[in-house]
Amino acid sequence: MKITRTQNLMAAALAGVLAVVTTVAQAADALSSWNDSPAKQSIVDFVKRVTTPGGKDFVPEPARIAVFDNDGTLWSEQPMYFQAFFVFDRIKALAPQHPEWKDKEPFASVLNGDINSALAGGEHALLEMAMATHAGTTTEEFEKIVKDWIATAKHPKTGRLYTEMVYQPMLELLAYLRANGFKTFIVSGGGIEFMRPWMEKVYGIPPEQVVGSSIKTKFEMRDGKPVLVRLPELDFVDDGAGKPVGIQMHIGRRPIAAFGNSDGDLQMLQWTATGPGARFCLYVHHTDAEREWAYDRKSGIGRLDKGLDDAKAKGWTVVDMRNDWKIIYPFQKK
Amino acid sequence: MKITRTQNLMAAALAGVLAVVTTVAQAADALSSWNDSPAKQSIVDFVKRVTTPGGKDFVPEPARIAVFDNDGTLWSEQPMYFQAFFVFDRIKALAPQHPEWKDKEPFASVLNGDINSALAGGEHALLEMAMATHAGTTTEEFEKIVKDWIATAKHPKTGRLYTEMVYQPMLELLAYLRANGFKTFIVSGGGIEFMRPWMEKVYGIPPEQVVGSSIKTKFEMRDGKPVLVRLPELDFVDDGAGKPVGIQMHIGRRPIAAFGNSDGDLQMLQWTATGPGARFCLYVHHTDAEREWAYDRKSGIGRLDKGLDDAKAKGWTVVDMRNDWKIIYPFQKK
Repeated sequence: MKITRTQNLMAAALAGVLAVVTTVAQAADALSSWNDSPAKQSIVDFVKRVTTPGGKDFVPEPARIAVFDNDGTLWSEQPMYFQAFFVFDRIKALAPQHPEWKDKEPFASVLNGDINSALAGGEHALLEMAMATHAGTTTEEFEKIVKDWIATAKHPKTGRLYTEMVYQPMLELLAYLRANGFKTFIVSGGGIEFMRPWMEKVYGIPPEQVVGSSIKTKFEMRDGKPVLVRLPELDFVDDGAGKPVGIQMHIGRRPIAAFGNSDGDLQMLQWTATGPGARFCLYVHHTDAEREWAYDRKSGIGRLDKGLDDAKAKGWTVVDMRNDWKIIYPFQKK
Repeated sequence: MKITRTQNLMAAALAGVLAVVTTVAQAADALSSWNDSPAKQSIVDFVKRVTTPGGKDFVPEPARIAVFDNDGTLWSEQPMYFQAFFVFDRIKALAPQHPEWKDKEPFASVLNGDINSALAGGEHALLEMAMATHAGTTTEEFEKIVKDWIATAKHPKTGRLYTEMVYQPMLELLAYLRANGFKTFIVSGGGIEFMRPWMEKVYGIPPEQVVGSSIKTKFEMRDGKPVLVRLPELDFVDDGAGKPVGIQMHIGRRPIAAFGNSDGDLQMLQWTATGPGARFCLYVHHTDAEREWAYDRKSGIGRLDKGLDDAKAKGWTVVDMRNDWKIIYPFQKK
């Protein structure tokens, strides 16, 4: 089959018409789990501004970069980061190979089910547990471990899979932005290889668009086959002032929209907000003690204090989960 | 305007038809600067295998990851890496701010135009020059410096802009792969922030798909505005065994196709070749002393020795530049 230049042009024009029609139709109910509120309106307004050809705030598609924190922004993070549950489950699973853990903190406390004591050692104890459970395998072995865990482990309070505890309104927001030519990225303090194995399916975000904390890896040959071995050595912490660094390292250009929920996201939002042209920053504020959790300025996990002040001062959007979202989780859909 | 589900389905079906027609049409002359050769045939065969729906080697679009080395694979690298010319030009430009360089090697030799002496200090001297010229600015200042240089600096032998010395057949290959649903990435030993400012325009590869060597950066506030400062500290060397590590870090899944030209690409090709399913590895062999340069096993720059043996042993494609390519550079097009 041979097609002419005219046919090509017609096809291109037709595809353009279809694209416009589709976008308009999608916008109508794209955010159906959002109540009509200033927060929702601010999102729709921003998207319209940057996608209107010829408008003064128009941004070409390749520059429509949107970055999302994960814990507390796309899924819940209480009573502790979900990756911590993974760490504890791994310690239990690995205990038979580590008889010494029975008498060694913080592992002994984890094995006795005493999480508070395990966490009493602070950052150092956490890091030790993270290394013991995240290193020592190849990248492919680790991917399988995460996939197996995420497919079966249940949240202690809701009894749901962790991937069921993602925010339906945020899933809609991700899809809405992508339908409008945005490229969506994760920029999270969570482990990059803990997130990649399930995010493509759950959020529609492929591994190459996930930025996170990492440990070092090393290329080596095993029985003539190359593997990447995960080393017990911190490589990068993607939190706070590390987030703009991670964004530069992985994305290489400044986002025009950023979404977070804690002071750990503040520098990412500042970095996003201060670029030229139209910018959008949003904080998810955990205000819903009934359907989710309510916490902000004094929380150990997901503290939102300085960020709340900055958001007010700078006119960023703050989502009031209790009032702005019709439902929290996908399983609440009617 | 309201569109029905039926209209939506029709639109989707039509778009599908158009996509197929376009792909077939493009395939016909997509590689027009390639002579009909086993090398060209091997590329077309591979693409057909992984894109044929229902075929045993079919690979879904998101997994069609192709990685390309840059120096010697997409553009020339003689008489030395083009980034080295940038380093020397920067030393000359910065010399007035560094009067001490007049008496300090390797800078003194560069300022005297004696490149061989400047390079005599080996890796240490190179690193010192790289740090002196690549650090100390913000990321945005550095981007501008690179853009200004790449728009004006000329190759000492050809008198051409460096971005004119890219390989036309490889540009066609990049476009051909993308037209067939591949996502194309750079995985180069070159500096990541030296490459990003011009690769989108020249190769059609956006900043977030460029993997390279890097120095550390630091987030800080300057006059109330956030900046990322480039530090004189190595972060990552994306060469040799570092390439699979860089691929995992940035892409997070194993490529199905890899393209290189030197032993520094060997581990990347090995890593790519040993994944499950259909795989494609290609070496560009510099055999054209007339139109480009001829070098391989004994070259200091772009040495291809072990890789050439491996390619033979494993049946990888080896491009003979002299015989397989009708032209080398875009400016040779008739």
